[in-house]
Amino acid sequence: MDKSKALNIVLLLVIVVLLLAGKGQEGADTFLKGWISQNFEDDTTATYQKVSFGEKELVYPKPAMVIGTYDSLGKPNIMTAAWFGVVNSKPLKVAVSMRPATYSYHNVMREQAFTVNIPSPELVQYVKYVGHHSGRDVDKFEKTGLTAVRADSVSAPYVQEFPIILECRVTEYFDLGSHRQFVGQVIDAKVDERFVDAAGELDFSEFTPVLYGDMGKYYEGGKEIKFEPLK
Amino acid sequence: MDKSKALNIVLLLVIVVLLLAGKGQEGADTFLKGWISQNFEDDTTATYQKVSFGEKELVYPKPAMVIGTYDSLGKPNIMTAAWFGVVNSKPLKVAVSMRPATYSYHNVMREQAFTVNIPSPELVQYVKYVGHHSGRDVDKFEKTGLTAVRADSVSAPYVQEFPIILECRVTEYFDLGSHRQFVGQVIDAKVDERFVDAAGELDFSEFTPVLYGDMGKYYEGGKEIKFEPLK
Repeated sequence: MDKSKALNIVLLLVIVVLLLAGKGQEGADTFLKGWISQNFEDDTTATYQKVSFGEKELVYPKPAMVIGTYDSLGKPNIMTAAWFGVVNSKPLKVAVSMRPATYSYHNVMREQAFTVNIPSPELVQYVKYVGHHSGRDVDKFEKTGLTAVRADSVSAPYVQEFPIILECRVTEYFDLGSHRQFVGQVIDAKVDERFVDAAGELDFSEFTPVLYGDMGKYYEGGKEIKFEPLK
Repeated sequence: MDKSKALNIVLLLVIVVLLLAGKGQEGADTFLKGWISQNFEDDTTATYQKVSFGEKELVYPKPAMVIGTYDSLGKPNIMTAAWFGVVNSKPLKVAVSMRPATYSYHNVMREQAFTVNIPSPELVQYVKYVGHHSGRDVDKFEKTGLTAVRADSVSAPYVQEFPIILECRVTEYFDLGSHRQFVGQVIDAKVDERFVDAAGELDFSEFTPVLYGDMGKYYEGGKEIKFEPLK
């Protein structure tokens, strides 16, 4: 037993003595609450015991991006990817990881290009459909009614209905195990005119990003968190 | 002029004739509305003109992760990173990109390990502080009052107050320009016991992820989007 524990027991005994001495229920309560607060409550945020889950994917938020490519016949295809992120600032590069079994993987290798089509919440039904079917079996543009447009700067199609588009040229790729990571330099970023104000400045106050959840769920989030920054 | 445009003009003439023939204002209106709907309105979602911004970072959502490392004296340090994502499934790997100018970059190179500390909204003031100061100038754990705990599986500290932790061993790194991308295999994923139910299953229904916005803003999102999936 260390000194701190011993001290706590002494304090407990003092409380019992005070109670027995008829110091009054209220006085004893106040003292007890102060002692518990000082000894057991964190002064910043509550902490919890951690539970280990080993090699488990517990990443939040995850994005839900739709990747546009041309196949060997020039037919536009789209897939959904959550294994995506920004990887470099200068030059601006993003990366998307794909399994060799996907149709898009071979399209990216051939064309060395892809588009990233960033959804808003009303497009989630398309994001899910596109993520659950292969371009080998179905023409996803025909099925969804979405509109393929040839990118201006790279050999890949983008989806007209999606509000934000990144046109990317592959600069590197890395085999990491089950997936190949394709790094793409952003040659052009396009955005719906509804998110550009009269002065030509971007205004995303009305844009809500889509998050990929587990078990095929998607989430939206756009509420700003107000807080006092530490100096 | 193509056939479709010619046909539209013929239809317009028919409308004018019907109106002139005294078919009634209501009948003409109904016909006109149907024709406009068929010819000009998208049957899925509205589309907008796109505006090009060139090499501009327009990625939404972006994560806001806190990366834990030990320095050469074994002192724990944390930094905030938005250039982060999952990059491989088997084995599970995540990647974070850092500039060589950062203190953490050299810590990761030396220890070949880092932790990813995933915030919940009430921790955002710490996330912002950690992202705006260097471990060279300040002991960020001392300043914030956050608690550094040695990871079980790698040589890096995690932050006790953060709800989800990934303990990562560096397996690859790639120089992409301004940033070096560190790929880390997830050796252990830890989560607060409050997100584990009585059966030992994960339950994130009460967890809200934090999104990094532009200009140092952060967002929360957790509202599920309900939609009818395409068959």
